[in-house]
Amino acid sequence: MTQPLRVALLGCGVVGSEVARQLLGRPEEFAARTGASLELSGIAVRSLDRERPGIPAGLLTTDARALVADADIVVEVMGGIEPARSLILSALESGASVVTANKALLAQHGTELIKAAHDAGVRLEYEAAVAGAIPIVRPLDDSLAGDRVTRILGIVNGTTNFILDKMDAEGSAFDEVLAEAQELGYAEADPTADVDGHDAAAKAAILSSLAFHTPVQLDDVHVEGIRDVSPQSVELAREQGYVIKLLAICERVAADDAAGMEPGVSARVYPALIPRGHALAAVRGAYNAVFVQAEQAGSLMFYGQGAGGAPTSSAILGDIVSVARRRVLGGRGKYSPATGRLRIVPLDEIPTQYHVTLDVADKSGVLSRVTEVFAARGVSIESVRQTVSEQEAAEGRATLVISTHRSVESALAGTVGDLKDLDVVNDIRATLRIEGAA
Amino acid sequence: MTQPLRVALLGCGVVGSEVARQLLGRPEEFAARTGASLELSGIAVRSLDRERPGIPAGLLTTDARALVADADIVVEVMGGIEPARSLILSALESGASVVTANKALLAQHGTELIKAAHDAGVRLEYEAAVAGAIPIVRPLDDSLAGDRVTRILGIVNGTTNFILDKMDAEGSAFDEVLAEAQELGYAEADPTADVDGHDAAAKAAILSSLAFHTPVQLDDVHVEGIRDVSPQSVELAREQGYVIKLLAICERVAADDAAGMEPGVSARVYPALIPRGHALAAVRGAYNAVFVQAEQAGSLMFYGQGAGGAPTSSAILGDIVSVARRRVLGGRGKYSPATGRLRIVPLDEIPTQYHVTLDVADKSGVLSRVTEVFAARGVSIESVRQTVSEQEAAEGRATLVISTHRSVESALAGTVGDLKDLDVVNDIRATLRIEGAA
Repeated sequence: MTQPLRVALLGCGVVGSEVARQLLGRPEEFAARTGASLELSGIAVRSLDRERPGIPAGLLTTDARALVADADIVVEVMGGIEPARSLILSALESGASVVTANKALLAQHGTELIKAAHDAGVRLEYEAAVAGAIPIVRPLDDSLAGDRVTRILGIVNGTTNFILDKMDAEGSAFDEVLAEAQELGYAEADPTADVDGHDAAAKAAILSSLAFHTPVQLDDVHVEGIRDVSPQSVELAREQGYVIKLLAICERVAADDAAGMEPGVSARVYPALIPRGHALAAVRGAYNAVFVQAEQAGSLMFYGQGAGGAPTSSAILGDIVSVARRRVLGGRGKYSPATGRLRIVPLDEIPTQYHVTLDVADKSGVLSRVTEVFAARGVSIESVRQTVSEQEAAEGRATLVISTHRSVESALAGTVGDLKDLDVVNDIRATLRIEGAA
Repeated sequence: MTQPLRVALLGCGVVGSEVARQLLGRPEEFAARTGASLELSGIAVRSLDRERPGIPAGLLTTDARALVADADIVVEVMGGIEPARSLILSALESGASVVTANKALLAQHGTELIKAAHDAGVRLEYEAAVAGAIPIVRPLDDSLAGDRVTRILGIVNGTTNFILDKMDAEGSAFDEVLAEAQELGYAEADPTADVDGHDAAAKAAILSSLAFHTPVQLDDVHVEGIRDVSPQSVELAREQGYVIKLLAICERVAADDAAGMEPGVSARVYPALIPRGHALAAVRGAYNAVFVQAEQAGSLMFYGQGAGGAPTSSAILGDIVSVARRRVLGGRGKYSPATGRLRIVPLDEIPTQYHVTLDVADKSGVLSRVTEVFAARGVSIESVRQTVSEQEAAEGRATLVISTHRSVESALAGTVGDLKDLDVVNDIRATLRIEGAA
């Protein structure tokens, strides 16, 4: 273990306080994953008055500058342009690595910040700035770096997707659904940044810069919001097999000599009709998804929660671990991912859910004989379904399909073994498990 | 620019030759993205006899050891355990970074290889080993490193998903569909590794090791294949709202003091029923998808092509760029992603597709007047739909919904401007664009 790394947190709102609680609550895990203990050195806040559950008051300070000057890793979750920009620049210049979730700042001053990090030889990470918990920044920046991205279609704003999804599902009007979203906390009191597309535009600028290795700023993005989307448009779209989604679109434009078109990139945000069969059409509620097309990779999609304290903190903590590892190892090598020694649990001990198809004798009392076998093993049955085809009837047989509740695999396997010995069971036709049920 | 980096390629099959063609075909792009030119120093093959289109014969060698000894980056795409394992170990020991797509090797000797890379202070990357082009290794290893992954459900074998999807769509039997898949090249002549679940099991071992930071090897994975899945089971599943998929399941098992259960991990592969509403149920054909649940991030899904020369090469090239950047910059700092200077193409020049809703006068000749306006701007119409509600009829109005073919935005916007001036058009109710259509 090397020296502890001092982590300074700028901001203590929904996201900041979640990041603080995680860092304070799981110190051994972060140490095991980075090779150094991560010490939360302080949290810069605007005012010390407010109560913050789970956050020791001694960590709070209003002197962000002093906190930054003494940190190895600076985590900026205060939002806004200033003083966030100045604090990040001063952190980078003093040799700290920076993790930020500030999409507006990156969309306007990303080039400056990335250059400052590069010049200082430190890392600037911002996975949380686009689509919350969904890993999309690193995949574009690293995984697809050897490919040529041609197009990105993103649902990157949860508020507008929630509204459009409700309008589609219920036929209601924009104003009505917006009011409801505000009540539920899915939309801000001032919803401008979301419904007029500015939030999505900032993300489109960041995604375009990453995907096309060219600086794209907020002003370069064409923006239209969803205020004018009418119930009639939603209805017409549905009738024609479409659904309306607010899309952030980033496109590589090929040269077209015939049309006198030079190559370039296009970044734009507007509500658009997409076919209901498209993978993005299935993105419901406040979820986010980013659909990426690349020359070699083909079509990829990344799906998950795009906002909220916990999901956003997941992305930020991932960035913190990532920059901490680099500081510990100087970027060469990699901290062994297999640091733990959890035991391998044999299948027998795992709770699973069985779906058993039996060929049984078609006579009275069979069902009770069969269900007794389950009961004897303590396995509870969720549903039984008996069918008799014409041929089965002629042969005095029936098909019994039984779904169980969750039970330990060994009990389920034992039950199936017992069923084999039952005289009323002719054959066990299939034993499958059910997964992914709620 | 620093010195060129020497890249040695081990293997020249479908994937290897695609990697070679990309490295040879886009040298400026790789140099711009890494800060060094990547020089393909040679390709180790078993025999020099075969013709390899697009690959200069002078690059081929049968002396893999000599090639490895003189490389900065070694890319292993030969497959199998030996000599791949020895060559990778010798590359790591001599200080080269290694990129591999070899899932069988990683699932059996991953711990040894990762330790060797760590001890040598170099990188070992293997994004292509799981789910081809889909970035899943890096998201688990980096992006989710600050979170606690609880469960992974993966469709990670394209051959079996193709077969099960066909059985579901057509009601056909396993043997029949397997033969068809073999004819189409979706299944190997010897399909054992795929249909018996061994390929998926190797991926489950790799995913579990990454997600749970604990060594999980191939032998630790419980495996059942899909040979016994009958058309009857597929049909019964459908009737009950399920679809059968071969799943790779990686689970963190919580301690349960009451049941005397110690914490641990479970890795298993078997065909299972999943609800048709589950995101994985929509994964069709030979596509792959990995569904991840984590404590903070919630549910995430990664979707794309899991196999094939081009998709797999995308992941490998991303790893090559990633390790090359680290060698150039020593891992501190990051190569600025905004190295290019592509122009921003204004929306006016972008080809889009319009969906226009008009309130028009309900009289003869209106349609031709309206369509003339589109024709005058060179915009071709895909469909026109006219409806007249009772109220509209009473008021002598009608609704016209027009979808255009792709045309340059300025022509479409101009058309809408012209329509406003048309006396038979009362109102332009909505102008939306269509995206994501085939």
